[in-house]
Amino acid sequence: MKILVINAGSSSLKYQLIDMQTETAVLKGICERIGMENGTLTQKNAADKKLVLNQDMKDHKEAIELVLKAMVDGEYGAIKSVDEISAVGHRVLHSGEDFKNSVLIDDEVIRICEKNAELGPLHMPGNIGCIKSCREVMPGVPMVAVFDTTFHSTMPAKAYMYGIPYTVYDKYKVRKYGFHGTSHKFVSEETIKLLGKADSRIIVCHLGNGSSISAVKDGKCVDTTMGFTPLEGLVMGTRSGDIDPAAVEFMRKKLGKSAEDMVQYLNKECGMKGVSELDSDMRVLEKAIREGDEKAKLAVDVAAYRIKKFIGSYAAVLNGVDAIVFTGGIGEHSAYMRKLVMSDMDYLGVDFDFDANEENGDGIKELSKPSSKVKVLILPTNEELSIARETKAMAL
Amino acid sequence: MKILVINAGSSSLKYQLIDMQTETAVLKGICERIGMENGTLTQKNAADKKLVLNQDMKDHKEAIELVLKAMVDGEYGAIKSVDEISAVGHRVLHSGEDFKNSVLIDDEVIRICEKNAELGPLHMPGNIGCIKSCREVMPGVPMVAVFDTTFHSTMPAKAYMYGIPYTVYDKYKVRKYGFHGTSHKFVSEETIKLLGKADSRIIVCHLGNGSSISAVKDGKCVDTTMGFTPLEGLVMGTRSGDIDPAAVEFMRKKLGKSAEDMVQYLNKECGMKGVSELDSDMRVLEKAIREGDEKAKLAVDVAAYRIKKFIGSYAAVLNGVDAIVFTGGIGEHSAYMRKLVMSDMDYLGVDFDFDANEENGDGIKELSKPSSKVKVLILPTNEELSIARETKAMAL
Repeated sequence: MKILVINAGSSSLKYQLIDMQTETAVLKGICERIGMENGTLTQKNAADKKLVLNQDMKDHKEAIELVLKAMVDGEYGAIKSVDEISAVGHRVLHSGEDFKNSVLIDDEVIRICEKNAELGPLHMPGNIGCIKSCREVMPGVPMVAVFDTTFHSTMPAKAYMYGIPYTVYDKYKVRKYGFHGTSHKFVSEETIKLLGKADSRIIVCHLGNGSSISAVKDGKCVDTTMGFTPLEGLVMGTRSGDIDPAAVEFMRKKLGKSAEDMVQYLNKECGMKGVSELDSDMRVLEKAIREGDEKAKLAVDVAAYRIKKFIGSYAAVLNGVDAIVFTGGIGEHSAYMRKLVMSDMDYLGVDFDFDANEENGDGIKELSKPSSKVKVLILPTNEELSIARETKAMAL
Repeated sequence: MKILVINAGSSSLKYQLIDMQTETAVLKGICERIGMENGTLTQKNAADKKLVLNQDMKDHKEAIELVLKAMVDGEYGAIKSVDEISAVGHRVLHSGEDFKNSVLIDDEVIRICEKNAELGPLHMPGNIGCIKSCREVMPGVPMVAVFDTTFHSTMPAKAYMYGIPYTVYDKYKVRKYGFHGTSHKFVSEETIKLLGKADSRIIVCHLGNGSSISAVKDGKCVDTTMGFTPLEGLVMGTRSGDIDPAAVEFMRKKLGKSAEDMVQYLNKECGMKGVSELDSDMRVLEKAIREGDEKAKLAVDVAAYRIKKFIGSYAAVLNGVDAIVFTGGIGEHSAYMRKLVMSDMDYLGVDFDFDANEENGDGIKELSKPSSKVKVLILPTNEELSIARETKAMAL
């Protein structure tokens, strides 16, 4: 059984075809510059055959038609016929408060997603447009919406409510939602398998260009750092994370920006990029630190300190912790960041293995000593597989 | 030796005359409606004699002249002559980055305070105006500026930097400052005396209508919840505390407010008052909870949960904790709030005494069992005494 996983942006479409027997991708690809000139499709199959098509796609419908053609290509594809695709899983940014789980797509689901589009104005129109096109091009194939937010829908009200008038929450749905849900779900589920017990207190640190941490109790999310949007929480690549709202207004006046532009500014020009005034990329920052760049060091110190504080915060929420898990580009690959975060954390019962932390290598890795009461792990995330699993569960 | 402590607002002036031998107030008073019609001075001395003067004061100078007259009143006053006042300590909201400690006031200090007035536009003009008037009326008496922020000036850069461009921090001084400094200083110093060791990890929870928590290591503040302004951090009486800046912008549009008005809204209409849609006062909320009010319960749950998270966060910052101390109106008097915060915190080594927590009484009180690795205390704050101690240290 094969499941097509689609992650559509406003002008791009990433896809993977996943064989559910082996839970591996037999094909990965991306369409870029949809609706513009100089469109391209790039695809690689399991035999490592790379296909590049330079072809304009006037909309997501044309993009999907091209994807289906590329997937059945005798040399560069992975299947003989589109009929081999059992179901399609669509990544959708925002569930609002309407969905607590992934959902089989029908007209009503699309209508609700359209209603919630204002909660994710940058991503939702692309997500929805792609779903509609896909249903036209692949009629009869079951499709599932897998949301970035629903894993966090188990948060209690005390965690998701902001300190704002109740009516404003109720009327406009302004609350903490959390994002990166498919990653937090995948990583916490895999960690539970490793721990061998369902009743567990797990802190998942998804650290990439966008970063978030979640607190997972007995497999259910009880809190997470991102909020109404992915801007809240940690200091990220280019996002400020938490900041005094009055400081934002003070800066706005000094910088002569509109309130709307400030949100863009906090999303794109801040975070580690802003503090370092160099780059948002952890590898670039680490290199600069080795060369003595003080601002790069400060940027990473600030980001690491914020991660450490949220781990502490979630240890209180969970009344202790069984496992702290690092995932995402930085979480999996930056020994420097993990060391800053995990130093001086023995109050939790952590005996961190600083040597193991420095060793290179892919895959699951234990970073705590056998005597440690808290397991510290690297566990590579796999959001596409997470979406495929959800799709299988809901559609088949 | 007697020290006059002055806490001036834009139209009010609170004062205490403190005898430094006994460290008690021999006189407390307040001038209200300065610069308006129907001004009043209300004063009580140690003999509990209450004086009320209905007299207009056109500015802070006239207010201070009235205060001096009231203080030497034969029946309602506490001293025979103004010469008995050895020094004056002025509470000043904001030090900017210019002062790391309280400072003896001269022209240069006033000039720097005026430069920093934009950091605290609601309070600084009143603070500065009152200092100037006081110097005119009491020439030759040493005066000390005691800032709400300087206790937090020992925070490391990783704690005070926001995830914003370094240049914006550097040019406009946008960073975390923290407030309630005189309270955090007083309470942590008294706690160190009780613990009997200077090398200590203390978390001070100052919970009142405005609330903040600080992490104090070996007597020095290493982090605190309030930020560039007192809006950041905890969910307070009427302040939202931390909230996704993008949620603020979303709300702004929905509510049709200006960016400036939103800051006011987050300061005055949010917090527990907003969530409960009832009141900002903890006593009113507790009563409503007993009567089954669900939104009042949610408001207090949200506020308590935020406190718990910051305690956890600071336990990570300090790598464990020796004492958690409650102070301020809510911290000292709400058993309900303390119970919510301290439940399920045994991962820290806390053995909370739930019975002791329920007992009424004033003064210092231990809320942890003798076996507890972490002391949990109520320790009444005394900001005026803290200011008087600082004044004595700097002026005499």
